[in-house]
Amino acid sequence: MKKAIVLLSGGLDSATVLWIAAKRYKPFCLIFDYGQRHRKEISAAKKIASKAKCACRVSKISLPGQTGSLTNTKLPLPANHTTANIGKSIPSTYVPARNIIFLSFALSYAEAIKAETIYIGANTVDFSGYPDCKQEFFKAFAQVIRTGTKSGISSNPIRIQTPIIHKTKAEIIRTGIKLNVPYELTWSCYKGGAKPCGKCDSCILRAEGFRKAGIKDPGNF
Amino acid sequence: MKKAIVLLSGGLDSATVLWIAAKRYKPFCLIFDYGQRHRKEISAAKKIASKAKCACRVSKISLPGQTGSLTNTKLPLPANHTTANIGKSIPSTYVPARNIIFLSFALSYAEAIKAETIYIGANTVDFSGYPDCKQEFFKAFAQVIRTGTKSGISSNPIRIQTPIIHKTKAEIIRTGIKLNVPYELTWSCYKGGAKPCGKCDSCILRAEGFRKAGIKDPGNF
Repeated sequence: MKKAIVLLSGGLDSATVLWIAAKRYKPFCLIFDYGQRHRKEISAAKKIASKAKCACRVSKISLPGQTGSLTNTKLPLPANHTTANIGKSIPSTYVPARNIIFLSFALSYAEAIKAETIYIGANTVDFSGYPDCKQEFFKAFAQVIRTGTKSGISSNPIRIQTPIIHKTKAEIIRTGIKLNVPYELTWSCYKGGAKPCGKCDSCILRAEGFRKAGIKDPGNF
Repeated sequence: MKKAIVLLSGGLDSATVLWIAAKRYKPFCLIFDYGQRHRKEISAAKKIASKAKCACRVSKISLPGQTGSLTNTKLPLPANHTTANIGKSIPSTYVPARNIIFLSFALSYAEAIKAETIYIGANTVDFSGYPDCKQEFFKAFAQVIRTGTKSGISSNPIRIQTPIIHKTKAEIIRTGIKLNVPYELTWSCYKGGAKPCGKCDSCILRAEGFRKAGIKDPGNF
């Protein structure tokens, strides 16, 4: 079976993508510890990889410079958002070059273990407005792979796959439920409390997604 | 004075680029500890940044997967090369996605500290054949910046500058000598011995460069 790198965050989007990838590839999960506000999402990602019986690697990276409210607990998280205004501008949770860094590590890993493809759970429908989740960014990154890597210049470029990029959160959830994705193991809240806060952008998008899908959230969000 | 990130390896190319950058910008040096065969080049890079009186940050990164003879001491380094056959194919010292990873960190740093540009000492004349040193790769990466970052989509993309990309090693050295680049502090050998080995691709290219420039190498290569 051919190999794929799957970027895993601990949230429901990337978990769904892992189960989609596993239909066709042997997945190698890549998780990043990049100084997030809390460890809950890393712990969730590890449990998800374990449930999928996949190889799993945690890459610890120290981002240079100040990188916004997702990694600096002194900065406030966005508040008082609704699904109507989330994603309309780049929020304070933006981490400069995050997906560029993640994809570059995934690419190095893919070339090293001869994986054919990289899966990432980016989405541009019910999303937070990050530029590095959009189709045109992935198209540009594909050209970086074609020009800047051994596999790329050998006419065998590693392909980036974004299977849920145009799906609504409700569609992602319906897809995942059919595949038996263990949503009870995923964590979406930007805060690392005992229970989801229910107020951050991520909690709001998740709750709205399950409501529209007509499914009870097994993660109690 | 406007800020620039300068990628510093400890070798003579990036040291020359630092002095070029410093004519127009306040440089912030970024050095990578990515599991090289030896620590000599990191130590050299730190000394160079210190001599230039620049801010200097060492980012430690753990590359996922097996990455060739530059980071795996069990693999042999390329041997018996001459300036005639160096760069004709991708050597075993190739590290998958290395410059993509380095640039993505530099980009994150640049956006975080509001630097305007990133300098990198890539070269395609007297070089080792790495695809991620070529102009078309940098052109592709510029499109990644334009589409995938906050600065890029705000029509103020961080620019990558490659001032020595088309220079011969002798031209780079002549430029550096005029700028008083402290070549005695630079380290080029792939091995980390007390003295340069004189046989690896990097030693060969350096020696030939000084010979053609008609200048004695103050680093005793």
